[in-house]
Amino acid sequence: MKDIIVQKFGGTSVADTDKIKNVARAVIREKNLGHDVVVVVSAMGHTTDILTKLAKDITPNPSAREMDMLLSTGEGVSIALLAMALQAQGCDAVSMNAMQVGIITEKVHTKARILDIKTDKIRKYLDEGKVVVIAGFQGITDDYEITTLGRGGSDTSAVALAGALEAERCDIYTDVEGVYTTDPRIVPCASKLKEISYDEMMELASGGANVLHPRAVETAMTHNTPVRVRSTFKLEDYGTLILGVDKMELHRPVTGVASDMSQLRIVVCDVKDNPGVAASLFDGLAAENISIDMIIQSYARKELHTNDIAFTIDKSDIDKAMGVLEKLKSELCYSNVFVDDKIAKISIVGAGMVGRPGIAAKMFRTLANLGINIKMIATSEIKISCLVDKDNANKAVETLHTVFGLDSNEIADVKGDLPNV
Amino acid sequence: MKDIIVQKFGGTSVADTDKIKNVARAVIREKNLGHDVVVVVSAMGHTTDILTKLAKDITPNPSAREMDMLLSTGEGVSIALLAMALQAQGCDAVSMNAMQVGIITEKVHTKARILDIKTDKIRKYLDEGKVVVIAGFQGITDDYEITTLGRGGSDTSAVALAGALEAERCDIYTDVEGVYTTDPRIVPCASKLKEISYDEMMELASGGANVLHPRAVETAMTHNTPVRVRSTFKLEDYGTLILGVDKMELHRPVTGVASDMSQLRIVVCDVKDNPGVAASLFDGLAAENISIDMIIQSYARKELHTNDIAFTIDKSDIDKAMGVLEKLKSELCYSNVFVDDKIAKISIVGAGMVGRPGIAAKMFRTLANLGINIKMIATSEIKISCLVDKDNANKAVETLHTVFGLDSNEIADVKGDLPNV
Repeated sequence: MKDIIVQKFGGTSVADTDKIKNVARAVIREKNLGHDVVVVVSAMGHTTDILTKLAKDITPNPSAREMDMLLSTGEGVSIALLAMALQAQGCDAVSMNAMQVGIITEKVHTKARILDIKTDKIRKYLDEGKVVVIAGFQGITDDYEITTLGRGGSDTSAVALAGALEAERCDIYTDVEGVYTTDPRIVPCASKLKEISYDEMMELASGGANVLHPRAVETAMTHNTPVRVRSTFKLEDYGTLILGVDKMELHRPVTGVASDMSQLRIVVCDVKDNPGVAASLFDGLAAENISIDMIIQSYARKELHTNDIAFTIDKSDIDKAMGVLEKLKSELCYSNVFVDDKIAKISIVGAGMVGRPGIAAKMFRTLANLGINIKMIATSEIKISCLVDKDNANKAVETLHTVFGLDSNEIADVKGDLPNV
Repeated sequence: MKDIIVQKFGGTSVADTDKIKNVARAVIREKNLGHDVVVVVSAMGHTTDILTKLAKDITPNPSAREMDMLLSTGEGVSIALLAMALQAQGCDAVSMNAMQVGIITEKVHTKARILDIKTDKIRKYLDEGKVVVIAGFQGITDDYEITTLGRGGSDTSAVALAGALEAERCDIYTDVEGVYTTDPRIVPCASKLKEISYDEMMELASGGANVLHPRAVETAMTHNTPVRVRSTFKLEDYGTLILGVDKMELHRPVTGVASDMSQLRIVVCDVKDNPGVAASLFDGLAAENISIDMIIQSYARKELHTNDIAFTIDKSDIDKAMGVLEKLKSELCYSNVFVDDKIAKISIVGAGMVGRPGIAAKMFRTLANLGINIKMIATSEIKISCLVDKDNANKAVETLHTVFGLDSNEIADVKGDLPNV
């Protein structure tokens, strides 16, 4: 049995028939390296936007079930065309939609999670020497309802298929060339990483480095499937390999620096210092489906028996959050609410910071030397985040990038001899 | 249990979102009459052409399997949008593709025939008070391969569903207002028929009155399902009801006059008068999938021991037919082949001509009075066809239409009180 490689191509990679022919060449290139190949594709280019507009022309509130029926047609087109392009280039190929494969999901429309993937038909086709082209983004419930997986759905389909097939690797072809130590648009000397761990990738992705959806990373971590992010348009490039810490060759203390401008900070002042007050507040926010990122409760002001509670949320949730606070006013007995939307969250991420003291201190000292005030701090095993003024964000990222040795001239070591894949 | 009405709307009826909203109104109108309603729709407008062009951009010879995968996406879009439009107008509705229904076909791509239709899920939805919107044109094999039904596929889907559901009636909504005694573009005083039998409809349809595909009529006849052809854009119109002769109210000897310009005539001269010669010729043509319409073998010329064999085929098959004749030249020993493409087949059709002598003679006499030479004659139980010069076709149709009492002022009787449906 040959090693299986799963390749995933997004909408921009299959946006027109010429691009689809290019994708066919990338698939055949992989097959000629001696692998069995399974390809996952998204809908062509702007198909999803066009279909969504049709639905909105019909009604402002289309039902979720019918949206899934509508949107799932997009991948039906791209898998058929890619299979034709492969056949036209002399490569035996067959397309399969989620129903034909058996990509079983929860009974939830527009954002279902995959429960199970049948592999028998795929393996049969692979044994016949075929390339199997599978529709991403879509699934099916056990009573044949069509579902879609929501944002990052095709990436998740590809990684989940790789896991179910025990694939050697899942290659995510995209319009970026890999994962960088920070956003190259902010720091021009950002370096492309050869490797990054699942954990680091999730922290960087949720911190704004949107190369691969966190759900896809999580799925890869579950199966311990290596995922390579690479460029559709530069097939020779190695890209970045995302894998388990245990398989990594090299641990630098800090792998990347991220900034996130999408949040705002809410400070609730002089909350009664009673047991259960924080629970009431965050239960109320959770009931409205508001995700909280950082939370700080200041030391209680003993003389007043009150606390200040500060937290950050996504900017789009501000109206819902203020509604919750209004409703809880009598219970929490707070004096004031301050909202600060001129903030940025700056994070350093690295699996190597575990057990290396001094990383956090070095970050704080760097910001202090720049005269940047830290408004909140949050830490996890592999990440340290500081909330700062938005105006200081880029300067902070640039300097931290240099201080932690991530500028491209500093990390030539990670660009050494690459395996020929 | 309520009576079930199956409604079918073609591509022009759902060409844009405004038209889809109109279709929703026509569906709700039927539901408000107290019926359970199942709706079958085709792909929107030119979708099939657009998808076919994409495939041709990829390769001049796309595989049939992948073409079916590609084309079947078209109905996925229209069923979802129509279900949304119904919901937006307050009508509970659900879309189903062929896989979800279980429209089982042969394992043949691009022109599969329906073998079986499961009705349990449809009935469950109807029992819940929902309108069920089903994708036409597509099917699925018992191992989940996607198939399409070929030309007239959506009509066939609708009629077959009506049969399987034992529906009260199948309404085919289209851009014509019904079935006419002859082509109104040729004879302005052509009358719309209130009723026509399956047999008559098939003879008229294959004679050029392309309102409903013969396969759909055949399917309706098998289940004895009444089919009403009616206008999408004039919902108040009764249209034409196609039904079994046994259920018809009124039998005129001639129901319609058709002309067909799509054929040409081949005369094979001086074929050896041996047993099996005609069989060889028509076996050879059948092997190339060439449909023969009329056949005449002239009286053998005793002194030469030869026959002339004349037959008509579709113009598009001429190259294949000439190839067959070339190959059989030594076996048939014919002297010459004449091809005549300036012909028209004029037919009169009527279930009522059975057992009424003189109809054929009246047709021949009418043509003779016009000075029109008859090149070939063919008859069936309910049809008499004459091959004439193309230039005489319109004159022949007009005069026959008048002679057999079909001009609109003559058949006011069929436009009497119509049932309120």
